[in-house]
Amino acid sequence: MALLVQKYGGTSVADADRIRAVAEHISFTKRQGHDVIAVVSAMGKDTDGLIALAREVSSVHPGREMDMLLTAGERKSMSLLCMALADMDVSAKSFTGSQVGIITDNDHGRAKILEVKGDRVRDAISEGTVCVVAGFQGQSLEREITTLGRGGSDTTAVALAAALDADVCEIYTDVTGVFSADPRICPRARKLGRISFDEMLEMAATGGRVLALRSVEFARNHNVDLHVRSSFTWEPGTWVTAEEGSMEEPIISGVTHDLTEAKVTITNVPDRPGVAASIVRALADAGVNIDMIVQSTSVDAKTDMSFTLPKTEVTASQSVLDDLAREFEGGTISQESDIAKVSLVGAGMKSSPGIAATMFETLANEGINIQMISTSTIRISVIVDAAECDVAVQRLHAAFGLDAVDVYSAPLPERK
Amino acid sequence: MALLVQKYGGTSVADADRIRAVAEHISFTKRQGHDVIAVVSAMGKDTDGLIALAREVSSVHPGREMDMLLTAGERKSMSLLCMALADMDVSAKSFTGSQVGIITDNDHGRAKILEVKGDRVRDAISEGTVCVVAGFQGQSLEREITTLGRGGSDTTAVALAAALDADVCEIYTDVTGVFSADPRICPRARKLGRISFDEMLEMAATGGRVLALRSVEFARNHNVDLHVRSSFTWEPGTWVTAEEGSMEEPIISGVTHDLTEAKVTITNVPDRPGVAASIVRALADAGVNIDMIVQSTSVDAKTDMSFTLPKTEVTASQSVLDDLAREFEGGTISQESDIAKVSLVGAGMKSSPGIAATMFETLANEGINIQMISTSTIRISVIVDAAECDVAVQRLHAAFGLDAVDVYSAPLPERK
Repeated sequence: MALLVQKYGGTSVADADRIRAVAEHISFTKRQGHDVIAVVSAMGKDTDGLIALAREVSSVHPGREMDMLLTAGERKSMSLLCMALADMDVSAKSFTGSQVGIITDNDHGRAKILEVKGDRVRDAISEGTVCVVAGFQGQSLEREITTLGRGGSDTTAVALAAALDADVCEIYTDVTGVFSADPRICPRARKLGRISFDEMLEMAATGGRVLALRSVEFARNHNVDLHVRSSFTWEPGTWVTAEEGSMEEPIISGVTHDLTEAKVTITNVPDRPGVAASIVRALADAGVNIDMIVQSTSVDAKTDMSFTLPKTEVTASQSVLDDLAREFEGGTISQESDIAKVSLVGAGMKSSPGIAATMFETLANEGINIQMISTSTIRISVIVDAAECDVAVQRLHAAFGLDAVDVYSAPLPERK
Repeated sequence: MALLVQKYGGTSVADADRIRAVAEHISFTKRQGHDVIAVVSAMGKDTDGLIALAREVSSVHPGREMDMLLTAGERKSMSLLCMALADMDVSAKSFTGSQVGIITDNDHGRAKILEVKGDRVRDAISEGTVCVVAGFQGQSLEREITTLGRGGSDTTAVALAAALDADVCEIYTDVTGVFSADPRICPRARKLGRISFDEMLEMAATGGRVLALRSVEFARNHNVDLHVRSSFTWEPGTWVTAEEGSMEEPIISGVTHDLTEAKVTITNVPDRPGVAASIVRALADAGVNIDMIVQSTSVDAKTDMSFTLPKTEVTASQSVLDDLAREFEGGTISQESDIAKVSLVGAGMKSSPGIAATMFETLANEGINIQMISTSTIRISVIVDAAECDVAVQRLHAAFGLDAVDVYSAPLPERK
C-alpha cells in the first residue's frame, strides 16, 4: 500500500465525461489498496474564460482580486470530481489551498510556497478518504488567497507529495510521457522510460513543455519521484527521478527545440570590464529575462554582444537597448525573430567526449548555420534559422541514435 | 456619513456591463461620504449552470461538495466587481464567507448563521475600503464551506448589517420595490413607500417573491431597516422597517397570490383527539411542509380534513397519505392542483373590523367560490380556483382602495 499524489491538468478534467474517467481511475487506484491525493487544475479553458471576463469588466486587475477570481476554477473541478467519486461509492473530500494549509508569500499571481501544513489532508487520508486538492492556489501569511502562477498545479502536487512523504507523484497530462523530441516535428521520437531530474530541468528550460521548470526543481530538491503519464490512455509514462550512478545511461536523452525566443545584437560595445554587467543589469531592471549571451572577439577594443530573450519581452527591452546604443559610440541594435534554439540533453554527455563535434558536423552536413552556442554539463544548445529547426531536430535525433535505439519500447502490461 | 450594506442579486451583476453599473453606483455612494459593504450573489444564471454541471457529472451530490461547487459563483462576481471598482479608483477588497467570519451550523445547502465575526470587514472599512462580500456562503464550526440556501444572499446582507450596526441594508433587485399586488396581473398595483416587518413577512409567506422570508425575519429580530430597490433604475424603493405606532397606517398594504400550492382532502377522518396531530406528524416526518389546514364540522364522529402543501411535495406526500387513508375506515384522498391562494395583508387590519366581510362579499359578487380560509392578525388568505386568481386579486385591490389611494406616489427627487 502506497500513498500516491495524482495531478490532473485542465485537459484531463475538461468536461463531465473526462471527470468521470478520472474518478474511475482514482477508484481503480484505491481498489489496488493505495491512498490517493488528487490535485486538479481548472476545467479545460475555464481559466481563459475567467481572464477574458476580467478584461471585459475592467482595464486594471489587482493581483488580490485576480487570484480570488481565478481560484473559482479549481473549486468547480475539485467538487465535481468528488461528486463523481461519490457516485462510485468512493469516499472523497475536496480541499482548497487554504484548507490544506498551503502557505505562500504575498506575491499575488506568482506566489511561492513557503510551507505545506497538510493536517486536514493527513486526517482525511488516515480515514481512508480520497483527498481532492485545488492545484495552483494557496493562502498567504496575510491570510489572502494567492495563486502560484504558471505550472502552479504541478508545483502544488510536488509540494504535497514532499510534505506528506508520498511514494510517487503522478502527473497526468494530455501526452503519454516525456519524448526524445517533439513528435509533431520528429515522427520517430520515442517516449522515454526514465529521465533524471537534471535532464528534465534542461529539457523543460529548452522547450520541452510537458512539465513546468519550477515543479521539477521542487521535485529534485525534495527528491520526489515523478511519473508523467496520460489520463487519456493511462499507459505507463516517463519516470523522472534522481540519477542513479549505477545505471547505464543513454548518452543523449532528447533533442528539444524552442521557437519562442528572439535574438538581439548590440554592436560597438566598448570592450572593458563591467560593460557586459551594465547591459544585463539594465535589462534585468526592466524585467527582461535574457537567456543565451555571446560576446564576439574584440577588435579595436570594441566587441559585439548577442543575446536571446523571449519574443514577448522584445518590446519591453526596446527603450533600454536604445539607451545603451546611444551610450556606445557608433553602437547599433539589430533584432532577429526568426530563430530557433535546438538543444541536445543527456546526463551521459558528461563522460562522453565528442558530442559537440558530432552535433556541429551533423548540422554542417545539412548546410545549417549555427548563430550562437551555449552549453552546460549535460546540454548543448545552438541558435539556428527558424526555417531549419525541424530538419535540425530530425537529423540530430537520428545522429545520436535516438531513432533506432529504443530500450524502453518493450510493451508494458495493460492495466486491465 | 453612514454605513450602508448594499446587496446585489444575480440579475444586478449578470454581465460585465451590469457589474460596471453596480461599481458606478457604489462609487457614487462612496463619493456621498458613506462607507459601503456590498454583498453579491453569483452572476445571473451561473448557479443554475453549476447545478446542471453537477447533474451531468454525477447522480449523487454530497452537500459538502455541492457547497464547494456553488461558492465558486460568488467568487467570480465579487472579484470582478472589485476590479470594476479599481478601474474607477475606488479601493475595494472582496471577502469570502469564511474570510468575513460568517459562522454557520453544519447543515450543508441550508446552513443557518450562528455568528458574524466581521473583523476583517471592520478593519477594511476603517481604512476607507469598500468591502465586497460573497453572499449565500459561510464557514461551519467544523471549518467546512457551507451555503445558506434559498434567499441566502439577502440573509448574509441583513446579518452583516446587524453585526456591523449598519444604518441601512439596501436590497437591490430587478423590481423597483414591494408592490401592493403583482403588477403582471394587477396593472394598477403601486409601489409601497413603507411597509412593516410583520406585513413584509406575511406578504413573503403568501406569494410576494421580492424578499426571502428568512431574511425579513432576521431583519425584524435585529431591527435592521431594509430598503428594497432596483439596480436598473436606482430610484427609491420600498422601506421595510419596524411598525411605528404613531403613523397613520393604511388598512391594507397589499394583495398577494400564490399558485404554487396544491390542496389535499382526506375524508372519513375519525373525530377524536390526536388524529389531526398524527396526520400532520406523519407528513412532517416525510419532509412535507403543509400550510393551511381546515377541518370540517363533524358528522357521525367523522370529519374531513383539507390542507395545502407545495405542488413540488405532492409526490413525497403520496405514500404517507395512502397509509393514513387505509387506517381510516372508508377514508379517501383527493387532490386538487388548480388552486390559488389569495391574501390580504395589512397591519391596520388589527383595528379595523369588517375587513373579512368586505373581502368575502367582493369575491361573492364576482361569483368566486371560497374553498378554504385562514387568518392571522394582519392577514386573511383564501383558496379559490386557479382560473379565478387574477380577477380575485384585481377586484380586492380595487375594493380596498389600493388602486386609487396612492399616498406614496409623489415623485421623489432623482439622484442626479
